[in-house]
Amino acid sequence: MDLKSLIREIPDYPKPGILFRDITTLLRDRDGLRYTIDFFTEKCDEAGFQADYVIGMESRGFIFGAPLAYKLGAGFIPVRKKGKLPAAVHSIEYELEYGTDCLEMHQDALHPGSRVLIVDDLIATGGTAGATAKLVQQLECELLGFGFIIELRDLQGRKNLPDLPIISLIEY
Amino acid sequence: MDLKSLIREIPDYPKPGILFRDITTLLRDRDGLRYTIDFFTEKCDEAGFQADYVIGMESRGFIFGAPLAYKLGAGFIPVRKKGKLPAAVHSIEYELEYGTDCLEMHQDALHPGSRVLIVDDLIATGGTAGATAKLVQQLECELLGFGFIIELRDLQGRKNLPDLPIISLIEY
Repeated sequence: MDLKSLIREIPDYPKPGILFRDITTLLRDRDGLRYTIDFFTEKCDEAGFQADYVIGMESRGFIFGAPLAYKLGAGFIPVRKKGKLPAAVHSIEYELEYGTDCLEMHQDALHPGSRVLIVDDLIATGGTAGATAKLVQQLECELLGFGFIIELRDLQGRKNLPDLPIISLIEY
Repeated sequence: MDLKSLIREIPDYPKPGILFRDITTLLRDRDGLRYTIDFFTEKCDEAGFQADYVIGMESRGFIFGAPLAYKLGAGFIPVRKKGKLPAAVHSIEYELEYGTDCLEMHQDALHPGSRVLIVDDLIATGGTAGATAKLVQQLECELLGFGFIIELRDLQGRKNLPDLPIISLIEY
């Protein structure tokens, strides 16, 4: 299936000069959604990922991470923005183009030795995925790799990630 | 499976006197996640829902709505908070305890006659689900019903929803 044809391009969003890749048109297509999740699962199996947990980042990472966790027979762990999780959290700050942002995960979500796969809809500069990876590795978990629906190659996000397998279903 | 045993209770969150029902402990349990999605799917089949689309509300509704859409062979449509969706949107305001909030959906997400199921993690007063229902009905779609993991019966959220089938997996 030509997944690229289901991604909508929105020029000058969120600011002039940026071509936004909109995954909502893929999600609303029942065949596209099914194919994406099945293909994603297949790629994870091929990569040999035997994840105990899939981590998805708020909030588009939830949309792909949860079905993937279900399919892989793993648990799902949400990583959220500051102040959104109800119990005690581990936090990590990371740099944005201007300023910093913060991600949080429940302190009791992971235990040392857990095998973890990090999933998001898209990797651009890799800031979010890189910060999540640091959080996982600080907890002495085994980070297996990363899964993205879309990878924007020009932005070289892989440079901000540890040297581990990366699955991306669509590349630009 | 005793799903209630997988829901963590957090007293006085987000404010004093509120007992928060935390679904992250269910999500991280691989058997709990699998059972929840399978049970949810089974209940939808029993209710005769033949949905073209599952709508999930930002952001915990994404976590359950997306796997359910996948399992039902439907498309998934995110309803988001103001300013988060990249293309042209329909908006709806709804009342909170103090003030109002706003939900948005892409204008081209639904067409008249589409059969729609609305999914969220929890129904409390029904404000969010009720507003989403209005949005769907204004677009002349066929709203089939609602699905929630948790229903807080005391808050009588059903009063804010149209008279349609409601699935809730856990009741308090």
